[in-house]
Amino acid sequence: MTVQQSLFLGIDGGGSKCKAVLMNAEQQVLGQGISGPANPLRGFDQATHSIVESAKQALADAKLPADYLSQLHVAMGLAGVNLAYYFEQMQNWQHPFASCQLTTDLAIACYGAHQGGSGAVIITGTGSCGIVQSESNSTILGGYGFPHGDQGSGAWFGLQAVTACLLAIDGLAQPTMMLNRVLKQVNCDSAEQLAAVVANQNATFYAKLANIVFDCAEQNDQVAQDILAQGINYLNHLALQLISRASCDLALIGGLSHRIIPHLSKVIQPRIISAKHSPEVGACLWGMAQMNNQHLSKVSVL
Amino acid sequence: MTVQQSLFLGIDGGGSKCKAVLMNAEQQVLGQGISGPANPLRGFDQATHSIVESAKQALADAKLPADYLSQLHVAMGLAGVNLAYYFEQMQNWQHPFASCQLTTDLAIACYGAHQGGSGAVIITGTGSCGIVQSESNSTILGGYGFPHGDQGSGAWFGLQAVTACLLAIDGLAQPTMMLNRVLKQVNCDSAEQLAAVVANQNATFYAKLANIVFDCAEQNDQVAQDILAQGINYLNHLALQLISRASCDLALIGGLSHRIIPHLSKVIQPRIISAKHSPEVGACLWGMAQMNNQHLSKVSVL
Repeated sequence: MTVQQSLFLGIDGGGSKCKAVLMNAEQQVLGQGISGPANPLRGFDQATHSIVESAKQALADAKLPADYLSQLHVAMGLAGVNLAYYFEQMQNWQHPFASCQLTTDLAIACYGAHQGGSGAVIITGTGSCGIVQSESNSTILGGYGFPHGDQGSGAWFGLQAVTACLLAIDGLAQPTMMLNRVLKQVNCDSAEQLAAVVANQNATFYAKLANIVFDCAEQNDQVAQDILAQGINYLNHLALQLISRASCDLALIGGLSHRIIPHLSKVIQPRIISAKHSPEVGACLWGMAQMNNQHLSKVSVL
Repeated sequence: MTVQQSLFLGIDGGGSKCKAVLMNAEQQVLGQGISGPANPLRGFDQATHSIVESAKQALADAKLPADYLSQLHVAMGLAGVNLAYYFEQMQNWQHPFASCQLTTDLAIACYGAHQGGSGAVIITGTGSCGIVQSESNSTILGGYGFPHGDQGSGAWFGLQAVTACLLAIDGLAQPTMMLNRVLKQVNCDSAEQLAAVVANQNATFYAKLANIVFDCAEQNDQVAQDILAQGINYLNHLALQLISRASCDLALIGGLSHRIIPHLSKVIQPRIISAKHSPEVGACLWGMAQMNNQHLSKVSVL
């Protein structure tokens, strides 16, 4: 099978879902798939299961048989693999594909957003993270995970909301509309119920509460506005650090980006562009470019 | 066996360790034991294992055989059982003792600190929580767990320290001496190493970093001082809420209390007393009082 006849699969694996896109060598989209969490920090078995599941869905969507898995040239951009331990773990995975290339979810998001050119990206979904890529520079900032990092992410906003609600219930902070909205969303009537529901919850759980903070802040809820200001303050600093390193544009990606963009500072606003491609298409295009480079270097050796 | 000949065991079960004290009916201490975490929020099997282990140690310390376990009248004060789900789970435990009474770690700490009288207690160890008990009032505030509650606890201080260090490494906050102290304690040289070490860590891990925040704050580290001020602000509010509910004194208990007390506000300071008994002795005395009440009520029925 030559590169021209090959099937390419791009994977964007995040903390709450895994997206796959199947393309041919002419960069036409043949099918798409979506499955569960694929961040190896949250479990190797879960991550690899989600990746294979989304690949199968993409094949089915393209009306191709499931056993074509073994013919796929896969390029994966995964959350968590900015940490060396998890990069190696995923690198050593005995995958069922023809080939498999690995990089971070940020690298493929940035590759897709700027079509392989220089640029910066901030991802704000369940987690948060920034990357800037240029010929002279490639830097990742943040993305350290929940609850110690990932400020301004969905999980971070949700955690702040729950913390504020518990303070209000104890009479140690002002009860505002946000308290009722959070209690309603998690089907609780009391502090005790809320505490039981949130015990041992992970980032995915908290991220589902993030929109409440934005909704309430936009309706002048003071507690929600304080949380929003703190999250946006971090994201403004992160954005400034990124774009100052390569004098480049910035794309915001991820489930919370449309809620965050309007709140970013006036200094950042003129630098914001829409992403040219989705992260999963970015993964696919990056994978193709890598294979072409390998092919060319083999040719030049010959 | 009459109450007079009985062996009483008091258990203080927290997030990082479980303490046991063995007493006779004359309230003489016969032996003591200490083992691992006993908060059922962090696992039922671990909690029950720690309780039995500390009981065995207390028997051994008293030079009594291990099969006396089945003769012990146990009273347990456990972290986490302020939540109904975990109270029921522990209540339904098929324990190996003659009898077993259950309440919160806060209730037995308060009972011991004020010798059964009115008073308030704040526990600041791995977690944080407050309780006030009087004839007319019994209220628990806080204690909702990590990372969403337990402000001003060891785990909370450690988490803030790690978050601040990661921001400093990314150039998004000032690097201060606290950064080097944290990196040294966890044997890391870089952000990547630190992020890998802290991934998926629990409250016990973070609590071990808390003293660094106090050490650095007391040496004028601005970042550590900001964290300390935030934690102390919460504890001041908590203390005021507690003592205002029963116009009573306040005891601070737990591994961090000696570091926190000097920083509390001038309004709180005059109300602070030393605990009269340890929480595990409090558990034992509470258990004896409960059994005497039951005995007396049986007598009165006869």
